[in-house]
Amino acid sequence: METKSTESGCAGIETVTTAAAELRVKTLSFGQSDFEAVLEERLAYGEESDEQVNERVAAIIEAVKRRGDDAVLEYTERFDRFKVGSVSELEVTKVQMQRALNGLDDEVRTALEAAAERIEQYHKKQTQASWQYSDEMGNRLGQQVRALDRVGIYVPGGKASYPSSVLMNAIPAKVAGVEEIIMVAPAPDGDLNPMVLAAASIAGVDRIFKLGGAQAVAALAYGTETLPAVDKIVGPGNIYVATAKRMVFGKVGIDMIAGPSEILVVCDGQTPVDWIVKDLFSQAEHDEDAQSILISTDNVFLEAVQTEIAKLLEEQPRKEIIKASLERRGLMIHVDTLDQAVMLINAIAPEHLELSVEEPEVLLPKIRHAGAIFMGRYTAEALGDYCAGPNHVLPTSGTARFASPLGVYDFQKRSSIIHCSPQGAQTLGRTASVLAKGESLYAHAQSAEARLEGGARDNR
Amino acid sequence: METKSTESGCAGIETVTTAAAELRVKTLSFGQSDFEAVLEERLAYGEESDEQVNERVAAIIEAVKRRGDDAVLEYTERFDRFKVGSVSELEVTKVQMQRALNGLDDEVRTALEAAAERIEQYHKKQTQASWQYSDEMGNRLGQQVRALDRVGIYVPGGKASYPSSVLMNAIPAKVAGVEEIIMVAPAPDGDLNPMVLAAASIAGVDRIFKLGGAQAVAALAYGTETLPAVDKIVGPGNIYVATAKRMVFGKVGIDMIAGPSEILVVCDGQTPVDWIVKDLFSQAEHDEDAQSILISTDNVFLEAVQTEIAKLLEEQPRKEIIKASLERRGLMIHVDTLDQAVMLINAIAPEHLELSVEEPEVLLPKIRHAGAIFMGRYTAEALGDYCAGPNHVLPTSGTARFASPLGVYDFQKRSSIIHCSPQGAQTLGRTASVLAKGESLYAHAQSAEARLEGGARDNR
Repeated sequence: METKSTESGCAGIETVTTAAAELRVKTLSFGQSDFEAVLEERLAYGEESDEQVNERVAAIIEAVKRRGDDAVLEYTERFDRFKVGSVSELEVTKVQMQRALNGLDDEVRTALEAAAERIEQYHKKQTQASWQYSDEMGNRLGQQVRALDRVGIYVPGGKASYPSSVLMNAIPAKVAGVEEIIMVAPAPDGDLNPMVLAAASIAGVDRIFKLGGAQAVAALAYGTETLPAVDKIVGPGNIYVATAKRMVFGKVGIDMIAGPSEILVVCDGQTPVDWIVKDLFSQAEHDEDAQSILISTDNVFLEAVQTEIAKLLEEQPRKEIIKASLERRGLMIHVDTLDQAVMLINAIAPEHLELSVEEPEVLLPKIRHAGAIFMGRYTAEALGDYCAGPNHVLPTSGTARFASPLGVYDFQKRSSIIHCSPQGAQTLGRTASVLAKGESLYAHAQSAEARLEGGARDNR
Repeated sequence: METKSTESGCAGIETVTTAAAELRVKTLSFGQSDFEAVLEERLAYGEESDEQVNERVAAIIEAVKRRGDDAVLEYTERFDRFKVGSVSELEVTKVQMQRALNGLDDEVRTALEAAAERIEQYHKKQTQASWQYSDEMGNRLGQQVRALDRVGIYVPGGKASYPSSVLMNAIPAKVAGVEEIIMVAPAPDGDLNPMVLAAASIAGVDRIFKLGGAQAVAALAYGTETLPAVDKIVGPGNIYVATAKRMVFGKVGIDMIAGPSEILVVCDGQTPVDWIVKDLFSQAEHDEDAQSILISTDNVFLEAVQTEIAKLLEEQPRKEIIKASLERRGLMIHVDTLDQAVMLINAIAPEHLELSVEEPEVLLPKIRHAGAIFMGRYTAEALGDYCAGPNHVLPTSGTARFASPLGVYDFQKRSSIIHCSPQGAQTLGRTASVLAKGESLYAHAQSAEARLEGGARDNR
């Protein structure tokens, strides 16, 4: 297709039209001989930091660690063409935040506030409480849950600078009880998206710095003279940001390294065709690497979707991105039964799963791996992306096998509590002593034995 | 001290005795002029993967990824001097596991089983349940909690091959409902510690492979012809294992990268001196990098501890390690008040915190950061290490600021659930549409709008 467009010698609209009309999403039938190979090829995605990226990022982190503010200023001038005399000049003032909020269109402000309200409501259900219990020996055991002290939120610049992401990253931290939330966002030539500032204001972000890239991650991890070190860094970013997060992991906590966004729609063929096409488009429009997969038991429906895609693509403002994404990574799979669909869901572990079927609740208990599950015909993924309440920061690229949506639990942590009674220390001490000696840890054994009957003393 | 011993020209016992008698743990007073600098120097610990380690590990991972079993066999022969014809020969049979269990000394078996029972009891309190609720529009929202399918547990060889760690890593996974637990442990010359095998048997480990190092981590992450890929890898290891875990993070989940173990004991001076000394020794005996810190309001008590250390050190089977650890990383801090102690606790965020004071429950609510808190004079850390119930895998090196003890929650993950009613899709759809347009994501807006009143249709 690409070759043809190029050969035609026509740039612009005509070329695009030709190509669009020709778009046909790759199709598979469950169980066809090359099924697994094709599926694997479509799912494969490898954005790995190469050696050069690793070296650059390591140098930036080292520079910020050693030279603090000075290094931050130099990199910001070099990468964002934004020159200021001190890091404090990179900080957005409360007045500027308030001005961004006041400058919002009424409709947008109402929508942002409604979304924030629902996100807060949902996340409040995730808070975890401390607990304790006594055992039969009178020992007290438990877990104390506490919020992190200070958290950094990275907000990307450019096309991925989304106010909704600010809400989704900041509100769970706020609900957890984090005392200080520091947001960083690159501001090429000094400019920040006012909607992002307004969203930060609504979400309760405490401080914002116009700072991006690996230098922002390094500054948050190690602190500088002006920017305080945080305990955890969350939020998506480009390959430099992702590499920097991986490198500072251990010094601070980090969230998952996000891959491209994906959706898996399962449809029984009874949902309006254009709804499903729009759902697939809404994923594909993110970027060329985004992935939309449709599984259906109905071959006629799949064919209707192909036709509708060709028809609706033309009017899409982001049609070039959608087309590239569907061509490179899109997939339609025909299955014989919904149980086959469930098998595929659990193998793929999709970030977004839409169950556009008559009885989604029948499938739900069988689903082991998915970031978020959109149930029924009315639950467009877009509703969850913005305002249903659950988080839109979700495990991508099959990581739903072991990872969860971003949540309040990511901003809380636990301390074990053990309070042995004098009596409990006898019984436990004997067990501990035996096991410690079995591991040749003799001081462990002595420490346990010191509390045994014979050793029970009081210094006072 | 080192110089003197060398100059004396005497090797062996005499040198050690001289050195031991001279051991005096570094002392600080809260607020002295160089307080922060000395504290920082003592706390500093940097085991970073150097370039050479990174390159070697990357090559091992790549080889295992490409050549599977063959690469695993080659590395096992090279690094563990253990040559077998196939990876299945590296697997420990059920019969061998049972034999190890039967071969245990009765006292040890009883102690291991008692510990396992208490660890299971405690961890059952950590299980998280799925939840759902309906909002005022009839939308259903919630979170579905599921166990990971398959988990890998790394058990180090040599001095850190602890049966107690097998219990602590495997039991939470079992309680979470993980279907298959695969343990790997290096077996130099083919030998595995039978107590480790027995502990694995008691904890319900499903399969064990005599396999270690970066090659074991790579095999667990990517799978080979014989060894199935897992979803998460937990357990400590040397720098090669830690580097490999960091590199495969994202393909699989990993637990924290553990640093050396540390304890912070706070004592009001009323606990028997030898109890405290044995507690400090029990930490120091782990390895030369382990850290024991004692904080007290009582200068006389601190002096008594110094004297007792010199006295008790001689009879310690692991005195060389204890001495090295206390000399290099040990610290005693005199504070004026327990509130100053709390301030230090929260700044240090210790892995183990022992509150050997009259009313530990008064301090507890003020403690923000600690892996595990041992309350009162009778709760020796050793009791928690083996059998009190809570996990002994804890965040080290100040990472308690953002991380938690290993727990059932590390082997469960969540999927968001969103089920919009036709009515709910109206209200949410309008909000989503406004926000999507604000982010120039037009297909998102269309997908939401498709479900609005005018667009509500049924295909059937």
